[in-house]
Amino acid sequence: MNNIQFRAIKLDYATVIEFELAAGVITPEELGGAVEAMPAFDPRKGVILSGRGPIWLYVALAHAAHGAAWVATYEPRLGGAVVCMVHYRDRKIGDVIPITLPYQR
Amino acid sequence: MNNIQFRAIKLDYATVIEFELAAGVITPEELGGAVEAMPAFDPRKGVILSGRGPIWLYVALAHAAHGAAWVATYEPRLGGAVVCMVHYRDRKIGDVIPITLPYQR
Repeated sequence: MNNIQFRAIKLDYATVIEFELAAGVITPEELGGAVEAMPAFDPRKGVILSGRGPIWLYVALAHAAHGAAWVATYEPRLGGAVVCMVHYRDRKIGDVIPITLPYQR
Repeated sequence: MNNIQFRAIKLDYATVIEFELAAGVITPEELGGAVEAMPAFDPRKGVILSGRGPIWLYVALAHAAHGAAWVATYEPRLGGAVVCMVHYRDRKIGDVIPITLPYQR
């Protein structure tokens, strides 16, 4: 039983991976299991991570999404997702992808 | 001129990379320059990232520290740094390294 729930939403250019923590909390001991539970994504496209969680969870999930074309994190205050890892040249670091997701900080 | 200031502290097992943002703020347009300005680290050791900044800055810096043995992010509330990327087997995901750094969230 994992205390993190994921939802994967397939867009034409990216997989949105939203997560929700039971009671909004995760402990470091649960980090390995959370990474293993992350949904699959299309490596030819980007990954947009979204959810309310600590920085170390985001870093671990972003690293697990390393095989994707790029990784962005959803930032509601900026009205989109900020590209922070790039492996293909179709995006660059700091690009903001306009998108609105259910998650609100 | 960069609005991010870095400080690298060499420990026997890791390089602590602390950052400070001018006025506490960074824009996505500044992310590429911030990554380029990140100090060098010893790839045989870990990297501990510390500073007050957005998740996308942490993900970008952690990715730039990809060549390190492992990467952890400082979490004052947990009294240490949480290992969230591992490349050598001397640490595992979710390990908390007890350390106190100047930065307080």
